[in-house]
Amino acid sequence: MTAEILAVGTELLLGDTLNSNAQYLSKELAGLGVSVYHHTVVGDNPVRLKKAYADAFSRADIVITSGGLGPTKDDLTKEIGAEYFGKKLVMDEDALKTLESFFTRIGRVMTENNRKQAMMPEGALLIPNNNGTAPGCIISDGGKTLIMLPGPPRELNPMFEERVVPYLRERSDGVYVSRILRLCGVGESTAEDMIKDLIEAQTNPTIAPYAKLNELTFRITASAKTEGEALALMEPTVAELYKRFGDNIYGEGNNLSLARVVVEKLIEKNMTIAVAESCTGGLMASALVDIEGSSKVFLEGLVTYSNEAKINRLGVKGETLKNHGAVSCECAKEMAVGVAKLVGTDIGIAITGVAGPDGGTDEKPVGLVYAAISVKSNVTVNELKYTGSRQRIRGRACMATLDMIRRALS
Amino acid sequence: MTAEILAVGTELLLGDTLNSNAQYLSKELAGLGVSVYHHTVVGDNPVRLKKAYADAFSRADIVITSGGLGPTKDDLTKEIGAEYFGKKLVMDEDALKTLESFFTRIGRVMTENNRKQAMMPEGALLIPNNNGTAPGCIISDGGKTLIMLPGPPRELNPMFEERVVPYLRERSDGVYVSRILRLCGVGESTAEDMIKDLIEAQTNPTIAPYAKLNELTFRITASAKTEGEALALMEPTVAELYKRFGDNIYGEGNNLSLARVVVEKLIEKNMTIAVAESCTGGLMASALVDIEGSSKVFLEGLVTYSNEAKINRLGVKGETLKNHGAVSCECAKEMAVGVAKLVGTDIGIAITGVAGPDGGTDEKPVGLVYAAISVKSNVTVNELKYTGSRQRIRGRACMATLDMIRRALS
Repeated sequence: MTAEILAVGTELLLGDTLNSNAQYLSKELAGLGVSVYHHTVVGDNPVRLKKAYADAFSRADIVITSGGLGPTKDDLTKEIGAEYFGKKLVMDEDALKTLESFFTRIGRVMTENNRKQAMMPEGALLIPNNNGTAPGCIISDGGKTLIMLPGPPRELNPMFEERVVPYLRERSDGVYVSRILRLCGVGESTAEDMIKDLIEAQTNPTIAPYAKLNELTFRITASAKTEGEALALMEPTVAELYKRFGDNIYGEGNNLSLARVVVEKLIEKNMTIAVAESCTGGLMASALVDIEGSSKVFLEGLVTYSNEAKINRLGVKGETLKNHGAVSCECAKEMAVGVAKLVGTDIGIAITGVAGPDGGTDEKPVGLVYAAISVKSNVTVNELKYTGSRQRIRGRACMATLDMIRRALS
Repeated sequence: MTAEILAVGTELLLGDTLNSNAQYLSKELAGLGVSVYHHTVVGDNPVRLKKAYADAFSRADIVITSGGLGPTKDDLTKEIGAEYFGKKLVMDEDALKTLESFFTRIGRVMTENNRKQAMMPEGALLIPNNNGTAPGCIISDGGKTLIMLPGPPRELNPMFEERVVPYLRERSDGVYVSRILRLCGVGESTAEDMIKDLIEAQTNPTIAPYAKLNELTFRITASAKTEGEALALMEPTVAELYKRFGDNIYGEGNNLSLARVVVEKLIEKNMTIAVAESCTGGLMASALVDIEGSSKVFLEGLVTYSNEAKINRLGVKGETLKNHGAVSCECAKEMAVGVAKLVGTDIGIAITGVAGPDGGTDEKPVGLVYAAISVKSNVTVNELKYTGSRQRIRGRACMATLDMIRRALS
């Protein structure tokens, strides 16, 4: 089975938007054993879009589009797609009802434009969208299949996982099964060096490493006649990876995150946590609050950005700030102990550092961060050093601190 | 002048690499007034690559490739490109010398493979690479131009800026200039309805709307002989947009954000701010801290996630929580006033809501959020309603609250 990815939108051609959907879909399709030989991007132009459909279907069985399902006149993906298959657009009552209740729920008036979003090609399979107004759909005819999805990744990704993956699995011969190992605390090139021999020798299963913000994943994919066979086939490779990376592997699965592992461990151990942040300024609290159910264990966060806040709220000593500065091992310690005491939690977390771009010195350069964890008054501090933008330094410091908590709870 | 971007590499089709070069090049080309109507990605396959060159040149004057200039057998971009133009590859002595000194500098041995990287199509213009081993080149013949650049962005970007931009500027007639207006507090479809007539009548300048997380931008682009003429040409359109959208337009420019406008206004007015967050859990504090220089005005943030934290830290009355609940207009008010008083700031901000997926009731459904702002003890509260995931609700609530602050400061 071969597929092509066709992203539609002038904003992509102007460079206003990054085509991250092509990467996401490619990775997912590779995991399903579907071959992808072309990505294409075209703008909101009916002539070029029609030609792009014809070109893509001349090469592939399946075309997956992203974007162009919005309410405006510019949004043409569905119209031209239906035309390509010789189908009319008809009002889909289910889609319309969903759309109407969506607008009621958000308390906004549904415009005439939005009704257009509920029009579907005759005979198409509806893909509901729980995170936006544009439903997707699948047209299949004469051995060709067109799968249309909206542009925003937060809408496209769950629609793909919930509806398109089962649809494609049913139609593929043999089974492709993936396991995703999630790592932290090890650099991308170090990790790739450590598995070079496995990558070079691989046929079935395959290993695909992928890195982002202080995190790394390995996707191991095997194909076989049944899911059980595929899983058995990849078992020795997975075991070898666990042997090589040990507790740098923090979990498995597509939707796992370090914050989720931390929150789940806290719930399991019935321990409470509070955080005091300086340079990360709420990122850590936000990462924990992002996880459903975190209210059971995360009681409070303080963004003690100023020295006064560190003294008044957390009981950091003026002397400590004077002798060692706010970005110091000593200050981080007092912040962690202080926040645990103030809120009355089992664990206190503190992060203080120089996020830049200004404020760095020779002694304390931009990117220097201290992260402290106090567990029932036993304090550990890590000195971290990063490079890059303010955003990158803050993000990395947050991830590394989450990893400290995870290891402390293991 | 029209150009296409052709990225070459199987790693892109497997989803292992994100095609960020297409975005970078598109943005740069838009700024130069070069129209881009297609992006394409093909793998390291000679047949498909040759066809991709033919297709791209059938549509565009210029094709810019990224990737496939490496030393291995898989790297074919230059070979197939030269073949397309009927040119032989010959050793370029300048390129070879640069390559040799590069290897001396990094203390590594140059392999026979690397010599291949110094082979250039006859008559091509060399583009030196100061950050890697693969030089780029430009072939121009019969009105068609092929610009070949290496894949890694840290190599491609400076090569494009230093060599390709001047090359294209010399050959383009006229100038394209864009202005980007940034809006908030108005929905995408409402906004598009409001400018339908302008979009339909547009030729030069053009208006391109684009929406993301509670924010909307209009990109207005005009072409003329000089920058001054282009700016003058778009002035009436820009003025009309300001007339129609008023203070929903919060600023202009590609790198502006609502958080930046808020921090800059606070600095300008010499006012301090503290925030108390429940459902957004640090997102608002983090958005402010993300802006360089925010430490001048942002003093402290409290993530008062539990009821105890709201009472103990902010002085919210137990009675208020009992009678109205934590997600209420009353609680938001007391939180905003409380945090301003506690920290001693001019402005206090509070956000409390039901982020979901659990915890919603008929009376207080998931997505209900109260945002309060206290400016020198005058309190305003907004009731907000959102749908979607926990992450989306939190993000939208944060943006809407930033907009409240902006309007309060105007």
